[in-house]
Amino acid sequence: MKALPEWLCHYQKAWLSGDITAGVIVTVMLIPQSLAYALLAGLPLEIGLYTSVLPIVAYALLGSSMTLAVGPVAVASLMTASALQPLAATGTAEYVALAVQLSFLSGVMLFAFGVLRLGFLAYFLSHPVISGFISGSAILIVVGQLKHLMGVTVTGSNMLETVKGLVHALPQTQLVTLTIGLGSLLFLWVARHFMAQTLARMGLSVKMAELMAKLAPMVTVTATTALVAVFHLDQIAGVSVVGHVPQGLPHFTMAVLDPNTLGQLWLPALLISLVGFVESVSVAQSLAFKRQQRIQPNRELLGLGAANVASALSGGFPVTGGFARSVVNFSAGARTPLAGVISAILMTLVIAAFTGLFYYLPHAVLAATIIIAVTSLIDTETLKKAWHYDRADAVSLLATAGGVIALGVEAGILMGVVFSLGVLVWRSSHPHIAVLGRVPGTEHFRNVQRRKVETVPGLLALRIDESLYFANALVVEDRIELLLAADPSIKRVVLACAAVNQIDATALGMLTQMEQNLAQRGIDLALAEVKGPVMDRLCHTPLWTQLQLRHRVFLSLHDAFIQPLPISSNLRDQAFSR
Amino acid sequence: MKALPEWLCHYQKAWLSGDITAGVIVTVMLIPQSLAYALLAGLPLEIGLYTSVLPIVAYALLGSSMTLAVGPVAVASLMTASALQPLAATGTAEYVALAVQLSFLSGVMLFAFGVLRLGFLAYFLSHPVISGFISGSAILIVVGQLKHLMGVTVTGSNMLETVKGLVHALPQTQLVTLTIGLGSLLFLWVARHFMAQTLARMGLSVKMAELMAKLAPMVTVTATTALVAVFHLDQIAGVSVVGHVPQGLPHFTMAVLDPNTLGQLWLPALLISLVGFVESVSVAQSLAFKRQQRIQPNRELLGLGAANVASALSGGFPVTGGFARSVVNFSAGARTPLAGVISAILMTLVIAAFTGLFYYLPHAVLAATIIIAVTSLIDTETLKKAWHYDRADAVSLLATAGGVIALGVEAGILMGVVFSLGVLVWRSSHPHIAVLGRVPGTEHFRNVQRRKVETVPGLLALRIDESLYFANALVVEDRIELLLAADPSIKRVVLACAAVNQIDATALGMLTQMEQNLAQRGIDLALAEVKGPVMDRLCHTPLWTQLQLRHRVFLSLHDAFIQPLPISSNLRDQAFSR
Repeated sequence: MKALPEWLCHYQKAWLSGDITAGVIVTVMLIPQSLAYALLAGLPLEIGLYTSVLPIVAYALLGSSMTLAVGPVAVASLMTASALQPLAATGTAEYVALAVQLSFLSGVMLFAFGVLRLGFLAYFLSHPVISGFISGSAILIVVGQLKHLMGVTVTGSNMLETVKGLVHALPQTQLVTLTIGLGSLLFLWVARHFMAQTLARMGLSVKMAELMAKLAPMVTVTATTALVAVFHLDQIAGVSVVGHVPQGLPHFTMAVLDPNTLGQLWLPALLISLVGFVESVSVAQSLAFKRQQRIQPNRELLGLGAANVASALSGGFPVTGGFARSVVNFSAGARTPLAGVISAILMTLVIAAFTGLFYYLPHAVLAATIIIAVTSLIDTETLKKAWHYDRADAVSLLATAGGVIALGVEAGILMGVVFSLGVLVWRSSHPHIAVLGRVPGTEHFRNVQRRKVETVPGLLALRIDESLYFANALVVEDRIELLLAADPSIKRVVLACAAVNQIDATALGMLTQMEQNLAQRGIDLALAEVKGPVMDRLCHTPLWTQLQLRHRVFLSLHDAFIQPLPISSNLRDQAFSR
Repeated sequence: MKALPEWLCHYQKAWLSGDITAGVIVTVMLIPQSLAYALLAGLPLEIGLYTSVLPIVAYALLGSSMTLAVGPVAVASLMTASALQPLAATGTAEYVALAVQLSFLSGVMLFAFGVLRLGFLAYFLSHPVISGFISGSAILIVVGQLKHLMGVTVTGSNMLETVKGLVHALPQTQLVTLTIGLGSLLFLWVARHFMAQTLARMGLSVKMAELMAKLAPMVTVTATTALVAVFHLDQIAGVSVVGHVPQGLPHFTMAVLDPNTLGQLWLPALLISLVGFVESVSVAQSLAFKRQQRIQPNRELLGLGAANVASALSGGFPVTGGFARSVVNFSAGARTPLAGVISAILMTLVIAAFTGLFYYLPHAVLAATIIIAVTSLIDTETLKKAWHYDRADAVSLLATAGGVIALGVEAGILMGVVFSLGVLVWRSSHPHIAVLGRVPGTEHFRNVQRRKVETVPGLLALRIDESLYFANALVVEDRIELLLAADPSIKRVVLACAAVNQIDATALGMLTQMEQNLAQRGIDLALAEVKGPVMDRLCHTPLWTQLQLRHRVFLSLHDAFIQPLPISSNLRDQAFSR
């Protein structure tokens, strides 16, 4: 690894204006979001600000994306809250210490995965599982924020309890808080859906109009804070406000993991790491493609790992690449991670000198910011597509989302992973097997059920459309036996292995035994079109020696077709009669 | 289902003598084994006898194997002990009641799997995992029996504690017990390895000699029981004997499952069911093949399910098809399950009238019987083969065996399953991808790195040797991008999909996005050799519409090769130059 990242070594002056603009705009977005996600994670709000400085710089040094905006995000914040709430009371020093440890552990894991090149672990999370997880989490988050909009206190360790609590608390709803909350929500919603086009119609360039629309949360925060401050709504109407946010830079924190905590935090840390990694890479990749840049997944692991360790060192909670801020960063003209560094510098300024400005910021406004941010994460499009394309994928998605909502984030995602692996194994355990015949006048072979083809009496040519391994070895054997039982004249079975990408030890055992069993009954087993990588393994086995010895390994199915069968009789004369 | 099994409807007189001989010989083997496996399961010994009657009859009515000998076996007994010991004290009425419930639950599960045709669940257990599990269990069993050989009392919930306990107990070793135990062990070992050939040399037929050798355990039991009885070794030398075994038929027992017990027993019951099913089917199948009979896995599930429910009804513990007894049954000439029924009748006689004969039977002799029976289950052959054929399979085997020994039977087998699924996903997450060229003068395509082939400049033809799904979609995309980066002249990427057996929603998303990304860069994505089942799904997707519209779906790679590229320029003139 070089001492300095490549983008810094080859920095071009022309990039600077774009990086500075993007840095400023992202900061304006980041301030309300970092406070809101700290609230969502159950942490003191200044922790959100702390989490928005060092991680960005650490990622800038090690990550491979030029435009990914790293920092606190909604789903990781929810996962943090969900992991820590059973272990400590929200907002206590112990809770904060656990968040720091979670971030540290997640960072170490990501970094280790990067060093060991274990990024493939993230591929266990299929797209439907991730989509279901995020949608389920978004719904959990929205429901969890309703209490802030209503200005009531509700505790509940699961969805059902929370909803019950909200219904019971309805009479205690504070009307001024609710008005501010719903007003903010309405303004943010209008801004998200109509502001850009209105501004464009008023003469701004489309791009500029879109960027301006992203500043709506900051406008909301400023306006409502001013409103509460001027009319003392916190005192006269009981509007819950952020209050005193400590000023000054965070202390350097050293996360100390005791074995007991490790036992409680490793699974949430692993899940936060994997989900965060998958989300970051997919955002980073879709942005990189637009500029024909490349993302290196293993460098992303190092970058995100360093970012989380940096977060822990500055007393923060788990971070990852955020979708919305990254897109804004890209659109605002960021060319390199310098944009992020600029944003980190501006955040440092805010922490060092301006936290007093947040005193009158209502919790309800932060809740509205969160709700608007996460509703865009609810992904019905993927569900619709999956439903039409592959019902099992759609069920994976729904099972994960349902699991998250009913059982919580960890149980939900684990359920999704187990379900999708189960579907995978179940599918490949029932492989498609076609009986083949030769298309007349060619060397092509097709399914006898789909095309009019020639067959050789006594010869059964099968194409197995799956790798042979423990989950399907016995099924394949069984299907072959059924086909043999249906036609007692068969003297040779040829397996066309073009689609057999692997043969594991269980399947090898099955083939070896089947060869012997068939031989006892006077039937040959032959293989055709065995691929290089499969042959490299097979060629040292007794089965292969046996087949080679008897000339029963064919390069092509055509070779197998023109080879005389082990019977001398009249059957040969009937060849190609079917 | 017919009222009577087929074998009974078409019973031929000629089969009778074989069935009777086999029934008698199996009974002589079964008596010591049923006592020994009850000891191993931690149950009163008469339970072993009870478990050897009704299950055989139930299996005879529903199972599909003509020669499988169902009853108590070593591994299921160990799994029973391992499941129940944390829940109740060995040998108590509560323990016995739990064993009955375990058997009932296992029977219901097996039966339900049979009705729902869920036999494929057993395929999750790969051959190496099963082999490692059985070997590990055999080692656990041997170590667990040493205390009986030594005549000491040792308790230990895991291997380490048991070994420590045995070492501490060494000074208390009872010499007479040890002598009887080691003597029995030596005799059984000699009988197993040399008796058959000696008897054959003395003039017996080889088959008869082999059968006689199987009677050695009964000889040992009889001789040592007589020895202890005559010399009162139980009183004067403290030899631990079986003592009073209640006489008379078992009471009909109704297993009542409360939800709490269900929560504790479902996992062991599931594992016992699956392991027992896999073992039974593999024994039954290897015997059936020798007589060109067929085993129907779903009927085996019904048969084994009924056998376990029958075991529970007669107060017994989980049963399955045993390897050794089945082989003896087959060799002794059993033609139908009538052999088993005869054996059940003889066992009923023993239970009703002759249990008194077991009074002086030393525990050490039962332990010796168990040890000799299970050492043959330690399977180094599979390990050796797997090690040479496929290192990952060998590691699965060792991990499972190690897991069983270190963590216990349940954790061990679960570890093996997770490990083998992990290997499966890991492998298919790094698929083999070959760049293809045309073998000159043919329509065959081969890897450019292995053969001298023709390529078309600007055309990248790739063969992906794996189904495309969530675990490899991003890897494949990444590999394609690397190949594109290496040759900027490429204008079309053709994916040859002959080995792609499935494309899931995640991979579809990847392909759709890649098509768009490539299009932006002026590169075409094309598909060739898409299989019927894959095409059936794809044809309703926007990706397919897009590709069809632009004529980028080719039946064969050859078609793709002769199709003009999207560039008019001089590149075409250089075709087939490489």
